[in-house]
This record gives sequence, structure tokens and C-alpha cells, in this order.
Amino acid sequence: MTQSIQDAPLIVAGRRFASRLLVGTGKYRDFEETAAAIEASAADVVTFAVRRTNLGQNPDEPNLLDAISPSRYTLLPNTAGCYTAKDAVRTCKLARELLDGHNLVKLEVLGDDKTLYPNVVETLAAAETLVNDGFDVMVYTSDDPIVAKELERRGCCAVMPLGSLIGSGNGLLNPATLALILEHAEVPVLVDAGIGTASDAALAMEMGCDGVLMNSAIAHARHPVMMAHAMRKAVEAGREAFLAERMPRRQSASPSSPFAGRING
Amino acid sequence: MTQSIQDAPLIVAGRRFASRLLVGTGKYRDFEETAAAIEASAADVVTFAVRRTNLGQNPDEPNLLDAISPSRYTLLPNTAGCYTAKDAVRTCKLARELLDGHNLVKLEVLGDDKTLYPNVVETLAAAETLVNDGFDVMVYTSDDPIVAKELERRGCCAVMPLGSLIGSGNGLLNPATLALILEHAEVPVLVDAGIGTASDAALAMEMGCDGVLMNSAIAHARHPVMMAHAMRKAVEAGREAFLAERMPRRQSASPSSPFAGRING
Amino acid sequence: MTQSIQDAPLIVAGRRFASRLLVGTGKYRDFEETAAAIEASAADVVTFAVRRTNLGQNPDEPNLLDAISPSRYTLLPNTAGCYTAKDAVRTCKLARELLDGHNLVKLEVLGDDKTLYPNVVETLAAAETLVNDGFDVMVYTSDDPIVAKELERRGCCAVMPLGSLIGSGNGLLNPATLALILEHAEVPVLVDAGIGTASDAALAMEMGCDGVLMNSAIAHARHPVMMAHAMRKAVEAGREAFLAERMPRRQSASPSSPFAGRING
Amino acid sequence: MTQSIQDAPLIVAGRRFASRLLVGTGKYRDFEETAAAIEASAADVVTFAVRRTNLGQNPDEPNLLDAISPSRYTLLPNTAGCYTAKDAVRTCKLARELLDGHNLVKLEVLGDDKTLYPNVVETLAAAETLVNDGFDVMVYTSDDPIVAKELERRGCCAVMPLGSLIGSGNGLLNPATLALILEHAEVPVLVDAGIGTASDAALAMEMGCDGVLMNSAIAHARHPVMMAHAMRKAVEAGREAFLAERMPRRQSASPSSPFAGRING
Repeated sequence: MTQSIQDAPLIVAGRRFASRLLVGTGKYRDFEETAAAIEASAADVVTFAVRRTNLGQNPDEPNLLDAISPSRYTLLPNTAGCYTAKDAVRTCKLARELLDGHNLVKLEVLGDDKTLYPNVVETLAAAETLVNDGFDVMVYTSDDPIVAKELERRGCCAVMPLGSLIGSGNGLLNPATLALILEHAEVPVLVDAGIGTASDAALAMEMGCDGVLMNSAIAHARHPVMMAHAMRKAVEAGREAFLAERMPRRQSASPSSPFAGRING
Repeated sequence: MTQSIQDAPLIVAGRRFASRLLVGTGKYRDFEETAAAIEASAADVVTFAVRRTNLGQNPDEPNLLDAISPSRYTLLPNTAGCYTAKDAVRTCKLARELLDGHNLVKLEVLGDDKTLYPNVVETLAAAETLVNDGFDVMVYTSDDPIVAKELERRGCCAVMPLGSLIGSGNGLLNPATLALILEHAEVPVLVDAGIGTASDAALAMEMGCDGVLMNSAIAHARHPVMMAHAMRKAVEAGREAFLAERMPRRQSASPSSPFAGRING
Repeated sequence: MTQSIQDAPLIVAGRRFASRLLVGTGKYRDFEETAAAIEASAADVVTFAVRRTNLGQNPDEPNLLDAISPSRYTLLPNTAGCYTAKDAVRTCKLARELLDGHNLVKLEVLGDDKTLYPNVVETLAAAETLVNDGFDVMVYTSDDPIVAKELERRGCCAVMPLGSLIGSGNGLLNPATLALILEHAEVPVLVDAGIGTASDAALAMEMGCDGVLMNSAIAHARHPVMMAHAMRKAVEAGREAFLAERMPRRQSASPSSPFAGRING
Repeated sequence: MTQSIQDAPLIVAGRRFASRLLVGTGKYRDFEETAAAIEASAADVVTFAVRRTNLGQNPDEPNLLDAISPSRYTLLPNTAGCYTAKDAVRTCKLARELLDGHNLVKLEVLGDDKTLYPNVVETLAAAETLVNDGFDVMVYTSDDPIVAKELERRGCCAVMPLGSLIGSGNGLLNPATLALILEHAEVPVLVDAGIGTASDAALAMEMGCDGVLMNSAIAHARHPVMMAHAMRKAVEAGREAFLAERMPRRQSASPSSPFAGRING
């Protein structure tokens, strides 16, 4: 009753998700905290770095799948730590094998290990190879609108520009380029990287992003579970504000209570 | 279960409020829309301009109290449209009379009718008079931290600095001065004026504000009821993010998935 | 020849100044560095704190007037360190006495010794007293446009809003309120406090300020004399950009070289 | 005497330039205004779009070389209007032919004709081809630090990231990525595109850029010749401020005139 417009679900590569908040699994104290934070976030999609996560290969170590059940969550293996198209492609194939043919992946090919800024040339190459090999590719990229459109043309099912550097918490440093990406995209656009706090997530959604992916903002808050809950609400608030269409900005003031017909005076 | 820290209620002049979102009644199409938006906002405190609102004096016109029940909401009469301390004091007294001794008011004394920027000298004078006359005074003011502290010293029960001009929707233009006010305040601080969209409200709360008051951001959205709902979540998200204590900002990147102990490679 | 519009001099209280950069004398290593930096700045007006500067009262200490000749520079005694109207008025009278009737002063009445934010109520009171006593009062104030206009009404000959806190180097934190002051002022408006680097000074001038006053930005740079020279050019650049009237901003791009009539292609 | 540090000239591909402001020739009313503005800018390097400029091929039309003498200015032919590496390479070869073997060019390969955002993949390809063919390539690019470094690796003699879209006048929208480029570059970095007014140019130089290129900011100001003069000073001011090393920013205030040893009290 409180929503006069009914929102559509987020659809990525034919999969429908109720939540527009996607979360990572890294940087938590242990899998218990990971599980609690992800539950509080109400996320449907959970991403993890294939190259550092135990999915059962190491029987003596904790297994992520015991904490994050694949029957409840959509797993999104990612290629964090890959610096070439070749490595990223190999990592996606490994994930597909470990997960019995699961073909949804988050591609990231990084430029260096200091900034973790994407290498867009390698990313474009890897995206093409993976799409041709039958993967559904959600792709981490810079805020370059030409590259974003080209990734879409090569068949990526979602484009995921950075707000700022991975793990920096600096929010959306260049809303203008993000707006250009949104203006021209025909696949979902999700901000991936840079979210630091609730207002950053709300802002991304208000601009019209289809979703937000984050990890450090939750895991590195002092109270991760509470922050996960805050982020859930922030993403919902931003989405609803987008659908509700905000008031226009004004240079001068506008009285809340005009006095033309005032009754006392 | 999802909240590891229990939040305290907002307490203003001994009154306890579950919601930290306060809303206005102006600028809606009709009282029906006003009522629907306020319900969606889940606000406990509802403000209205004494000088233009019919509380029953004009029996032939719609009565605000029929739409906003005083048994359900805490009414917060305000002095919008007053440009002198004298006018504001008289307006508060009129409100107290119309509302059977209700002594909680929002004081605003404006500097001019173009900017609606507060006149802090007149505001200080009115605040002192009203406090001495037994009012509980929540006070709209500029972002001047010295004036804010002085209003507190004169007995105001809440200080309400602007984020930007009333009705402008420009958000928090000077977070640095707001931070100074928050650092030194011993009464609740609520941002009043300037909120334009959900992320603005979340940001105010993340900074540590005790609440947010808004009117135009809801009433002038294309879909006010949905925006009211968005704002409810935004204020909650910002509050929870404040309590959860955000991650530190970093100049350089930080990998979500460190590779020191990676299992494949 | 390079200037198609001839600029007018800055006129304050009937005094004409070629330079729109005003500088302070504090925080330098010694009077020699002070003199070199001020020379490099090409400033005409030099301000100093009456309460801490030796103008000859202490014959055994260095005398500012030996470094900064009153025959070359217009001295602008200021009331730094005063927290009440009474103290500020007394300090101005002392300055007038020490300087043989010199009646141009910079009034500042501060709110506390942590923020050095102005106390606008005390400032208004002091301004009125000083104007009535025959002083030409340039007044440091907040960015409150109502207070700025009221200071003008009480006879101040220049209004000097802060860009950010004294000595913070944070630049112009709220250009919107500065724009409101500029829109309504009929006396010169000079940004005083907060300038950190050359672009801050240029920005203030581009917005239409009549001048800029600074001290820390020069004195606390690693190379004060070179920074003084930079600031001179920055103020001139900003002034000329204001007079030249900048290009309009565009959301989309505009080719530098339109191709409608291109000759190759 | 006013400069305590002697600045080095800008050196690009072995050529030495006294001025760090580079200017374009487009968008002026006529070649007379072009010449006057460029003279006022004191620029040494002047860029023009090969595909639309008459260098004598059309004997009946005005010839740029009559207005901008190659004996006085270093001409910088650019590939504005090219959307593929192939077109850009062909355009550079045409320029070299028209200019008797002149091999310094500004490469730009654009992504689309609405945003004029660079196509970095085509830019990288064109850069490699041109360098191998003996050109000295100054290259317009996005603010992507990985692409910027790769352009340098491929032999470009200067990297020229955008501040914001060409012709938009929106200034430096993402100083953080520009800082990353500056941190890692071993060739000159010049901001190209987006400068709108003097403070934008000063800011770019203060950050450590080696130069700034602009066209619209001068040509589309109401008074281009005066704006050219302003920009000259702004670039110098920003450069000097960079060399002088600005004061540190402070969260709290710092008195210009400490009162520990004050002489009056």
C-alpha cells in the first residue's frame, strides 16, 4: 500500500532477483560472520574470488558452501586477482567445473595490484572469449562509457563500473560518467567497488543503477551485520527514490508553506 | 537479530519518538495525499505552519486535524512566514491556544522571503522569550556552530540547522559546519531544510544527526507516497550506518580478496 | 592590449587599491620573510593583529613598521584574539591611537578559540559601535547572507565572509551561500579565511568577489615567497576570468572543431 | 627575485616550451580573433584539427598559417573528428605531408560524436602505429590510469587525460584518477578537455600536471582575449603554487596570530 509504483525484479541473464544488493564474502573474521552479514543484507547474489576460496577442494579447511548455501543464494564466482585475459578465462572455467556447470561469473581483469583499477583492454578480450564459450558475464569495468557500451556489444549480461577504487570506500567519485553509462546501457548497470557507506549506495540507486555490489563497506565496518542491514535499506531507499522521481533542484528557496491564502496574518 | 546494536529512541524535551524522520504538511495536492504520504513515512512528528493551517478556526474549510490525528502524531506547530521575533512569539502563543496548551513548537524566524534563510539574531531573541514562557523550542537555524551552541544555551530542546535553502533540494552543502555543530551539541541536532532525495537524508544521519525534517522532498517528488517510503528507509539506513561505524576511507585500493594464502594460483 | 576590458580599482571606504589581494603578517619565520612575501604578493593592504604586534611600544623588539612601511602599504589593524564586542572595540581604539588616527580596521569577533568561527551577534554589536565612532570597518563574518546584509546596513565598508575556518586551508566550502552574499551586497565582498592554494583564490574572484585576504596559505606554504607570487597571479587570473565571463557549462560534449564544413574527410 | 625556485621549461619529445598553456584554434569568430587570443595566452603550442583547417590547400579560403605563424608557434595538428585508429593514422600522415615532415601530433580517437569521449582501444592501436612510423605522439585519453601508463609504454611523448567532456567546461570531475596518472607517469601529463575557467586550470597545475590544453574555455568566453590572458596567469599561478607546495589542510582552525606571547592583553 505504501508503494504507488510496483518495482520490477532485477533480471540478469534471465535470472530474477528480488534484491538489488549483491555482496562479497571476503575480509570477514570467519565464515560465521560472513553468513550473518549476508543474511542481514538480504542479498540474493553472493560473489567470491575463485582463486582464494575453498569450495571443497581442500577438505581440511572451512568450505564456503557450508556457510553460503547454493540452494539459497545465487553464487557469483569472480576472477579477483587476475591480471590477464588468459588467467581470467582459466579461472572462470575452473569455477564452472567446481560448480557443476554454473555459468554466471563476474569478470574482473585488473591493471595492477596497487590500484586494482581494471585493465579494460584485457577485460574486453576476456569478455569476448567467455561469452563465446557460453558464460553469462557480469563485468567489472572502469567508468569509461565507450568501454561499457563495447562490453555490452560483446555480449556481457551486466556492466559493473567502479564508483572508486576497490576497497577505498570513497563512494561515487564521478557521477557524470556513470550517468553517461546509464544513459546508453541496454543491460543492467551495477556499481561495483568504492561504496563506503549507506548514502553512497542510495546515491547509486537514485541515479538509476540497477544494483550495487559491495564487500568492504560491510565487512570493514565496525559492526558488519548492522552495516549489512543498513545497506539493504539504503539500496531499497535509493531504488524507491529513483522510481518516485525526486523534486527538482532550485537555486533559490521555496517556502514549504506559501502564504498567499494564509488564514492568519 | 539483524541488528547487533540496539538503537535508542529519539528523545526531544522528554518526548520519545521511534522515528527519526519528521515531516511537514505543506505543498501536497490535498489533505488525502498529505495523510497517505505521512503514513508511508512512518513519522511520529508532523509539522505545520500555524499561520496558514486551518485547525478548525474556519469551519467551512478542511481541517488538518481530521487528516493528521493528534492522538496518533505529535504535532509540531511552526512559525513559517515570520520575519521577526515578535511575530514568531505571537504565532507560538496562538498555536498553544489552538492546541489546548501544547507547548512543543518549531521556531523559525526568516531573514527574507526570497532565500528563507534564517535571521539568527531574531531567532536567538525569540528562542529566549519562548523558553522563558514555558515552550519546548525546536529551532531552525543556519549552520553557524556558534549560534547553534548559543541557542542550546538559551534552552532550546533541539537545534535544527539547514542543509541548504528551504525547498531547494540541494542537500547538505556544507558538511564541515554541520560536523562542528554535531561535535559540540548536547541536545538533539536535526537537519531541517534542503533535503532533496534519499541519499541526502542518509548522509545527514550517517554524520550523526539525531533526525531529519523534510517537506518538499516528499511533497514535490512525482510520487510523494513512494518517496515518503523511500525517506523512511533512507533515514533508518543512515542511522544504522552511523551506529555500525563505516569503514575507513583509503587513498589506494584494497583487494576484497587478499591473495597471500590463496589456494589456486 | 591583452585586456579588452579595463578593470576598475578596488575601492574600500574611498581608498583605491590596485591589488585585490590583501595579506596578513602572522606565522612567518621573521619580519624579513614577511617583507619578502608581501612584496612578492604585490598587495596594497596588509593586516596585522593589534594585540600581538609590536608597533614600537616595545622598543627592544622588532617593529612591524620597519618591515612594512606605512608609506608604501595601507595598514589594516585587526582584532584577532577578541571574543567580545567590547574587547574588539577597545582593540580598534588602541590601534587608532598607535597609528595616529588611522581609522581603517578589520573587525573580527570570534566565537571560540578552537574553530575561530565568528560570533556574529558580537560582531554586529561591535560593528555598530565602531561605525558610530568614525571607524571604517571591514568585517570578518560567516557566510550567512542575512548577517552579511545587516553588517552592510550598519555601515561596514566591506564584508569579509569566510571560505572555511581560519587557517584550515579548506578553500570555499559553500559557494552557494557566498553567491547569495554577492548577489545582494552593495559594498565590496572579500573572502577572508580558508584559502589554501591558488585555485581557491581564483575561484573566489571568478565568482565575483572584490578581493581575497589570506595569511596562512602564503606563510605556511613550503616556499612562502613563491606562493605569494602565485597568489598574486591567481587573484588576477580569477578577476580577469570574472570580467571575461566564462563559457557556459554543458552536460554533453561540444566539439572544438565542428565538422559541418570540414575540408577533408 | 620573487621566485625562490627556478622552474624548468616544459619539455615534450625534446622540444622546450616556456609556456605550459597549450591552446586550440577552433570556435573563434575569425582568424583575427584567433590570433589575438593566442597572443594573449602566450602559448607556444597551438593545436588545430587537420580535417577541417585550411593550410593552403584551398587557396580561396583564409589560411591558418597566415594567422598563426609556424616560425613563432609550434603547430600541433590533431585528429579531431576521427573515430577509428585507421582514420587517425591517415590524418596524421596528411598533416606531416602538409607541414613538410613536421612529426609532432596530437592523437585523439573518439568514441562517438555525442560525448567525444575517447575510444581507448582505438587510441592505443593508433598510438602504436604512429610511434612506429616516427611520429611524436601527444595523446588525448580518458582518466584511466592503466590506459595512460600503457600509452606511455607504447612510446607516446605526452599523455593528455580529460578533465571532463570536450567542450563541456565542467572542470576536473575526478581529481583522484588524475592523481593516479600523475603518480605513475614518466612522460609529461597535460589536462586536455573540460577546462571551463581559470580556477580549473590552476587546480590542474597545482596537482602537478605539466601543462593544460584548452580551446572552448577561451573561445567561448564572452571576451576571449581577456580570458586567454586570465588563463595564462592561471596556469602560471597553479604551477607556482605546485612548486611552492601548499599549506597542509586542517580540520580545525589555526589562528593567523597566535596569542601565546601577545603583547597586549
